[in-house]
Amino acid sequence: MSLDNVKVLLFDTFGTLADWRGSVTRRGERLAAEKSIDGVDWDAFARAWRAGYAPGMAKVKSGERSWTPIDVIHRERLDEIAIDFGIADALNEADRQAMNLWWHQLDPWPDTVPGLTRLKTKFLISPLSNGTLVLLSAMAKRAGMPWDFILSSETFKSYKREPAVYLGAIELLGLEPAEIMMTAAHNDDLEAARSHGMRTAYINRPYEYGADQTKDIQADEKWDIIGETTEDIATALGV
Amino acid sequence: MSLDNVKVLLFDTFGTLADWRGSVTRRGERLAAEKSIDGVDWDAFARAWRAGYAPGMAKVKSGERSWTPIDVIHRERLDEIAIDFGIADALNEADRQAMNLWWHQLDPWPDTVPGLTRLKTKFLISPLSNGTLVLLSAMAKRAGMPWDFILSSETFKSYKREPAVYLGAIELLGLEPAEIMMTAAHNDDLEAARSHGMRTAYINRPYEYGADQTKDIQADEKWDIIGETTEDIATALGV
Repeated sequence: MSLDNVKVLLFDTFGTLADWRGSVTRRGERLAAEKSIDGVDWDAFARAWRAGYAPGMAKVKSGERSWTPIDVIHRERLDEIAIDFGIADALNEADRQAMNLWWHQLDPWPDTVPGLTRLKTKFLISPLSNGTLVLLSAMAKRAGMPWDFILSSETFKSYKREPAVYLGAIELLGLEPAEIMMTAAHNDDLEAARSHGMRTAYINRPYEYGADQTKDIQADEKWDIIGETTEDIATALGV
Repeated sequence: MSLDNVKVLLFDTFGTLADWRGSVTRRGERLAAEKSIDGVDWDAFARAWRAGYAPGMAKVKSGERSWTPIDVIHRERLDEIAIDFGIADALNEADRQAMNLWWHQLDPWPDTVPGLTRLKTKFLISPLSNGTLVLLSAMAKRAGMPWDFILSSETFKSYKREPAVYLGAIELLGLEPAEIMMTAAHNDDLEAARSHGMRTAYINRPYEYGADQTKDIQADEKWDIIGETTEDIATALGV
């Protein structure tokens, strides 16, 4: 399948380009030191926080809940796990607001910025992410992700893997689906993208959730490109 | 009026940041040399092309015509003025397609990139323009406009000065209107932005349309900031 027509590369962000688990863990450890909070496994905290992500979005996807930005879902989950981890009393409102912004300030994987910088020389590059526009642009600014533009689920009032996100991106770009390549570390994101005619690139991030990760530890299908890093994607695309 | 709360700066693009008249004129003169087309006043051609912009959008705004991207409006107008300027026979389909992309490749004013680069250090910066996402990102890439993200009328399926564009931007950003500043060289764009609660910055471009320009040769109202260049806006905002 020729990739010569690809003009735009879209990227999943959480996990694919940004190390949310390591970032939240490091922030938590710093906060714990500042506030003398003891006994919290911040890696477990990060994973527990993230575990609220899919169920939070599921209510929006099912229509049980009207459009709700990811910041709200993050915050509601934070309030839950603050109790679960026994630190609810230690965290005041200002702490919680600041913590919620950790998701705006995630660190990139080491290959992310070099790979995107190479890819930008030949393609228009953008996230296609469930983060908000402000979240994604704040993260990009801090991390140096050199986006040409930013596509957010919020634009389409729908979360991946709902068709509206991919179809909305295709329509907004005014391109043929095969001129757009979706890049993700999650097989189901690529499956959705491919079902709408997009090209696909898989980046393997087998430790996104930790050493005991059981899903997305390899490419489950013959995606157009399969690599270990964004730099591999650049190399495969000849840049 | 305090501007301390401003977080995002939005910019009109055509005329405010990009010199469409000079850019199209230079492209036309180069094309004429290549194809031995004589006797065309390319500055007049550029202005005639641009003169189709407002009427083309007006049909969309009035509902007479369903959503139509600016590329289509540009192309229809090109076909009209090719006849008016007596060069219809000289321009084949490929020529016309290439010419339509001149609007994707406009040159910035000399202050545009330095000013935006300064402003980006403190604010999230984005166009809010009637150009398409692809047009605006292609222009930015070529010119080096360092956007954090790109807001296009196309996202809101409505053209400025329709309320849907400004209200859509405010909603998508999830900010208070007063946290957003609209920057433009056109008083009516700022008037619309201010009517929805945004802050306003005026950049004077009195030669956008040529020496005989009669509109937008000065700030018609007390906008929050009034300057001659994007660098003036940066200075006024303390960056």
